[in-house]
Amino acid sequence: MRRLDAGRPVSEADLQTIIEAALKAATGSNSQTTRWIVVTDSGLRNRLGAVYQQCWVQAAEFLASPEYALDDRIFRSASHLGEHMGEAPVIVVPCAPGPPGVASASVFPGVQNLMLAARALGLGTTLTTLYAMRESEVKEILDIPEDHSTYAMIPIGYPLGRWAEAVRKPTAELVFHDRWGSVFGSQNSDT
Amino acid sequence: MRRLDAGRPVSEADLQTIIEAALKAATGSNSQTTRWIVVTDSGLRNRLGAVYQQCWVQAAEFLASPEYALDDRIFRSASHLGEHMGEAPVIVVPCAPGPPGVASASVFPGVQNLMLAARALGLGTTLTTLYAMRESEVKEILDIPEDHSTYAMIPIGYPLGRWAEAVRKPTAELVFHDRWGSVFGSQNSDT
Repeated sequence: MRRLDAGRPVSEADLQTIIEAALKAATGSNSQTTRWIVVTDSGLRNRLGAVYQQCWVQAAEFLASPEYALDDRIFRSASHLGEHMGEAPVIVVPCAPGPPGVASASVFPGVQNLMLAARALGLGTTLTTLYAMRESEVKEILDIPEDHSTYAMIPIGYPLGRWAEAVRKPTAELVFHDRWGSVFGSQNSDT
Repeated sequence: MRRLDAGRPVSEADLQTIIEAALKAATGSNSQTTRWIVVTDSGLRNRLGAVYQQCWVQAAEFLASPEYALDDRIFRSASHLGEHMGEAPVIVVPCAPGPPGVASASVFPGVQNLMLAARALGLGTTLTTLYAMRESEVKEILDIPEDHSTYAMIPIGYPLGRWAEAVRKPTAELVFHDRWGSVFGSQNSDT
């Protein structure tokens, strides 16, 4: 959900619930090295939004090209987020020690827990990594130590506009049985 | 849940439910480039288990060292998985195009959905990336194309032994408000 209501804040109780869901996800060896920065200060959000907007402008050129073939509706929605990231009532940035990506398997399960908990409370979120081309600026804005990396930018807020289930490809195209290329599931022989 | 019942199979209906939950997670631009290999064949599971066992032996030396300070209970549980991976009734391996890690933000949210759906059905799972030191062997066993990378090995089965909620560090240690180091949440001032 990339269109969020800038004028409707998220309650502290809901934020607590969402964050606690994130912390309950498993991490490698239960190491719990992820640190979650919950940004509500409007000045900081605006600065993050300005960085994100610059990244969006750069990415949009590529995403609009015919070879990328991005769905038009997704492009417009991503464009909205590109221009309005800073207006999301809350932006969460998970961080972990080490170079970018090394802790992905421990960070993103928590991100998904956070997004599911938000959804259950009627709150929309998006997982974006587009800001990564200007990660150093994000780290500076949020005082993130040099030896940590960021993993995502997750705006949270009440949804604006249509909130439907996204269309997915058929299971037979995405899932294999035993080996790459083998059909999974009996009913998939029909698709 | 690293101790699974080797003698109790997972129904095809449950596997379908679990896999469909994985596919419902969001992916970047809804690109859905993850391919999920669901391994039930015992010969293939045994081969994956042998690779994983070799990785475990190598990792155990490091994980047992005092500087890593791995919790003893986790070490024993990880050791069990190291010796019994191939006996899990099902092993899921998600893959995506490109070099390792590039699609993490699109793969692991689906992995977490899969693990939550399994949990809701009474099935235990573990997310491990320990096999990655011998990823080429895993790719060969499962016929995964050269231009794709694996992201995890996820054994699925009915749990053996104690299944409790894992202990987590206090929220105040893991979550910051607005900036790195700032306390999040009013109640955290007490912790």
